[in-house]
Amino acid sequence: MDLRHGFDIKRYIRTIPDYPKKGILFRDITTLLANLHAFRAAVDELAWPFLKGGIDYVAGIEARGFILGGAVAHVLGRGFVPIRKKGKLPYRVIGQEYALEYGVDTIEIHADAISAGDRILLIDDLIATGGTANAAIDLIRKSGGEVVAAAFVIDLPDIGGSKLLRDKGVKIHTLVSFEGH
Amino acid sequence: MDLRHGFDIKRYIRTIPDYPKKGILFRDITTLLANLHAFRAAVDELAWPFLKGGIDYVAGIEARGFILGGAVAHVLGRGFVPIRKKGKLPYRVIGQEYALEYGVDTIEIHADAISAGDRILLIDDLIATGGTANAAIDLIRKSGGEVVAAAFVIDLPDIGGSKLLRDKGVKIHTLVSFEGH
Repeated sequence: MDLRHGFDIKRYIRTIPDYPKKGILFRDITTLLANLHAFRAAVDELAWPFLKGGIDYVAGIEARGFILGGAVAHVLGRGFVPIRKKGKLPYRVIGQEYALEYGVDTIEIHADAISAGDRILLIDDLIATGGTANAAIDLIRKSGGEVVAAAFVIDLPDIGGSKLLRDKGVKIHTLVSFEGH
Repeated sequence: MDLRHGFDIKRYIRTIPDYPKKGILFRDITTLLANLHAFRAAVDELAWPFLKGGIDYVAGIEARGFILGGAVAHVLGRGFVPIRKKGKLPYRVIGQEYALEYGVDTIEIHADAISAGDRILLIDDLIATGGTANAAIDLIRKSGGEVVAAAFVIDLPDIGGSKLLRDKGVKIHTLVSFEGH
């Protein structure tokens, strides 16, 4: 049991069997976001290792990473940088492809969003395969930024994404984990 | 000039000509989000009329409304409810179609996200035609919720969306406005 702020964040996460396809247990954070105590605890726990400083920008991955990332940026008193799906940002972008189960997808960041030496905290709701987070880290590094840490509410360690990111030299901060796939 | 927190939020909004098509002046808030002072001022100004209470949930419209809405929910100490594009929410949903320039689109909310009598603050970055916000208000009302107000960083009053929402009995809170289309 993960006890934080005196109560259990994990029990606010709803598990939906067979979504998006048969055999997958989908971890739904909308029930956590909707509960004022769980939402506040999750945001504050994501932010706390960085309250002392050392972060210039919070970057969030579209779309659930925007909800948490916006709140974490506000708590830390830092600006927010969106990392979006292809074609969604209006200015000049840098893109990064990543592999899906079938085919590839691309995420993008504004070319002028991050400057050389900027220290970035990356936020998303969940780390599974790490495909998107890995591409986001590559984008931040291509922009000249340093990924100080990547923080997620949920880790699915058996799928290997958090290990993948650690192997690439990124510090990982997660709040709860679920075994299995 | 809109002076808030002792400085001008508006000048942090970047205008991109001819995006997404010729003749459109796109108001890009990523430059505002990235500036720690402008982002904090925008979030606090969106939230302040509601600090005294009267809100049960903050609802944000995908995707830019998630960044601001997540932060506003945290400031108000309330839960967050996402209103998403079709097919993105994992549980049972209620949907609402709305007209685009050509064709229609649909937004969705979880069927159990809002209960009868819940008081909702709706957040998005910008109100133009009001098509999406109008559909979001219909979704909240169909769910039994009351839309206490809809708050946006940017109003484009000449396009008519803010008037449309006011005519339907919704209180509107906006921070800056741009004349013209």
